[in-house]
Amino acid sequence: MPLQQLIQTYLPAIEDELQLAVARSHAPHYAELLKMMRYHMGWDGEGAGPKATGKRVRPLLVLLTAAAAGDNWKNALPAAAAVELVHNFSLVHDDIEDNSPLRRGRPTVWKIWGLSQGINTGDTLFTLAHLEMLELRRSVSTKIVLDAASLLQHTCLHLTQGQFLDISYENRNDLVLDDYWPMVSGKTAALLEACTELGAIVAESDATTRNSYRLFGRDLGLAFQALDDYLGIWGDVSETGKSAASDLLEGKKSLPVLFGLQQNGAFATRWRQGPINPDEVPTLAAQLAAEGGKAYTQYQAERLTQQALAALKAANPQGDAGEALVELAHTLLKREV
Amino acid sequence: MPLQQLIQTYLPAIEDELQLAVARSHAPHYAELLKMMRYHMGWDGEGAGPKATGKRVRPLLVLLTAAAAGDNWKNALPAAAAVELVHNFSLVHDDIEDNSPLRRGRPTVWKIWGLSQGINTGDTLFTLAHLEMLELRRSVSTKIVLDAASLLQHTCLHLTQGQFLDISYENRNDLVLDDYWPMVSGKTAALLEACTELGAIVAESDATTRNSYRLFGRDLGLAFQALDDYLGIWGDVSETGKSAASDLLEGKKSLPVLFGLQQNGAFATRWRQGPINPDEVPTLAAQLAAEGGKAYTQYQAERLTQQALAALKAANPQGDAGEALVELAHTLLKREV
Repeated sequence: MPLQQLIQTYLPAIEDELQLAVARSHAPHYAELLKMMRYHMGWDGEGAGPKATGKRVRPLLVLLTAAAAGDNWKNALPAAAAVELVHNFSLVHDDIEDNSPLRRGRPTVWKIWGLSQGINTGDTLFTLAHLEMLELRRSVSTKIVLDAASLLQHTCLHLTQGQFLDISYENRNDLVLDDYWPMVSGKTAALLEACTELGAIVAESDATTRNSYRLFGRDLGLAFQALDDYLGIWGDVSETGKSAASDLLEGKKSLPVLFGLQQNGAFATRWRQGPINPDEVPTLAAQLAAEGGKAYTQYQAERLTQQALAALKAANPQGDAGEALVELAHTLLKREV
Repeated sequence: MPLQQLIQTYLPAIEDELQLAVARSHAPHYAELLKMMRYHMGWDGEGAGPKATGKRVRPLLVLLTAAAAGDNWKNALPAAAAVELVHNFSLVHDDIEDNSPLRRGRPTVWKIWGLSQGINTGDTLFTLAHLEMLELRRSVSTKIVLDAASLLQHTCLHLTQGQFLDISYENRNDLVLDDYWPMVSGKTAALLEACTELGAIVAESDATTRNSYRLFGRDLGLAFQALDDYLGIWGDVSETGKSAASDLLEGKKSLPVLFGLQQNGAFATRWRQGPINPDEVPTLAAQLAAEGGKAYTQYQAERLTQQALAALKAANPQGDAGEALVELAHTLLKREV
C-alpha cells in the first residue's frame, strides 16, 4: 500500500512549495494580505492545522501522476502548488458567492476581513497560482512551461464557466439532466482533469498517455461528484458526517434531483413548490428513488468509476506511484453507494 | 500630430482583438456570461458605445511602444488586449469593493446581475486576459511569450497588493506620505508600467531601452495620479467635470491629503474628526494649501512628468509612433496644475 508512504513524502514538500508561493514578492507593507492568505490556507490563525488545510488531493494527484509517468515528482512541484492555489482562490470566492460563514469549521476570510478584502485575497491567490506555475522553469523546458501555463489558464476559464452555471441554476426550476454535466465538468472535474494532465505534461508523456491521464482525472472528478450527490440524499449519516438528505434541504441541483425534475412526476411537482421541510425529507427521498433517481445516480457513479479506472489502466502507470494512483482512485470512490 | 491618425488605425484592431478574446472557448451554455462581459466592455446593452468602452489608453500605449521600438504594431495586439482585459477585470471587482452602482454613467455589472455573478465575471475576464497573452505565440518566440506572461502576472500581483492597501487605508487616520507611493504604484502605475515594458518586450528591445520604456510607463502613471489628486481638490470644475474638491468630500487618501496629515496641523486635526461637509470644503482646501499641500502636489506632478518625459527620450522612440508617444504623454499630463 504505497499511497500512505508517498503522501508522507510528498505532503511536506507540497506545503513548503505552497508557503513559498504565497509569500512571493512579499513586502512588509502587505503583511495583513499575507496573513489573510495564510489563514485561508490553514497554516495560521485559530483552528490552523491539518483539518484546516484540507487533504491536498489535487497537488498529490499531480505529483503521483508525474512519478507514475516516469518523472521525478519534484519536477512537478510548481504545477502541484499552482493547482492547489487555484483551488483555494475558487474557495475564497465561492464562500462569498454562497454567503458561507464557515469553511472547514472556521470563519471564512470575508467573514473576518470583510467582502472587499475577501474578493481581493481571492484575486491575489489566483495571481500567485499562475506565477507559481512559471516556476516550472526550474526543471523543464520553456515549451513545456508554456503548455502547462496554457492548460491551467484554460482550466480556470472552464472553472469560471462552471461557476457561472452554478450561480445561474440557483433560481431555475426548468433544469434537465443535460444541464448537469457542463456545470460539474467545470466546477469539479476540470481541475482534477488538469492535475493528471499536468503531471503527464511535466513528465513529457506521449500524446496518447497524456490523454489517458487526462481522462482519468476527468472521470475521477465526475465519478466523485456523482457519488457525492448520491450520498447527499441516500448516504449514511455516520459516514458522510452530513445530516441525512441535506442536499434536499439545501435545494441543491444535484444529479438525482435533475433526474427527478426531468421525470416530471410527483417529486418534480413537490420540488417546484419551494423549499423542502425536514419532516418531508424521508418521503421525498423515497419518492425520488421510486421514480428511478437513486438507481440512475448509482449507475452513473459506477459507470464513471469504471471509466476512470480504465483510463488509468490505459495510461500504464509505473512503480509505487502508479499503484498509489490506483489506490487513491479507490479511496476517493470507495464510499458505499 | 500623428497620435490621432495612429489611434484611428489601432483602435478598430484593438476592439476586434478584444472581442475575439472575450468570446474565447465560448459555448451556447454560457451566453449570459458572455453578455455580462460584453456589457461591461461597452459593446452591448444600454449606453453601449465609445463613452462606455473608455479610451483604451493602455492597449494604445502597448502598440505605440512596440511600433516606436521598431516592431510591427500588429505583433503586440495580444499583449495590448491582455492589459485592457486585466484593467477591466480590476474595474469589475473594484466596483463591488467600492460598492459603486455606476461606471461611466451605466449601472455596474454587479448592480444588474448581482454580487455572485459580478465576482465571477471579473474572474472570467482575469482568466481571459492571461489566455489572450499566450496568443502572442502567433508572432513571437516562446521565450518572449513567457517573458510577457510572467510580466503580466507580476503586474497583477502588484495590482492586488495596491488594492489591498487601498482597502486597508479606508478606515485609517494614521497614514503618512510614505503610505502613498506603494498604494498608487500598485493601483495606478503598475499596469501602465507593464504596457510600455510589454511593447518593448514584444519588439525585442535591448535591456537598457526596455528599462527606459518601463520607467516612462511607471512615471507616466505616477504623474497622472499626482495630477489627478491635485485636480480632485484644486481643479477647475468646468475642466474636470467633477464637483470642486470632491476628493475632500469623499475622504479620499490622496497625495495632498496624506501630506496634510503628515504636517499634523489644523487640516489634519479637522480631517481626523470625520466626514467633511460641503460648506467646509473651500476653507479646508485653503488650509491645506496654506500648510504646503498644494505646492507639494504640484511639485510632485511636475517632477514625475519631467521624469517620465526624460525616460521616454532615453528610450529613443522612432517614427510616427515615437512622436505619438510624446504627444500622448503631453495629452495625459497637460491638464493645468
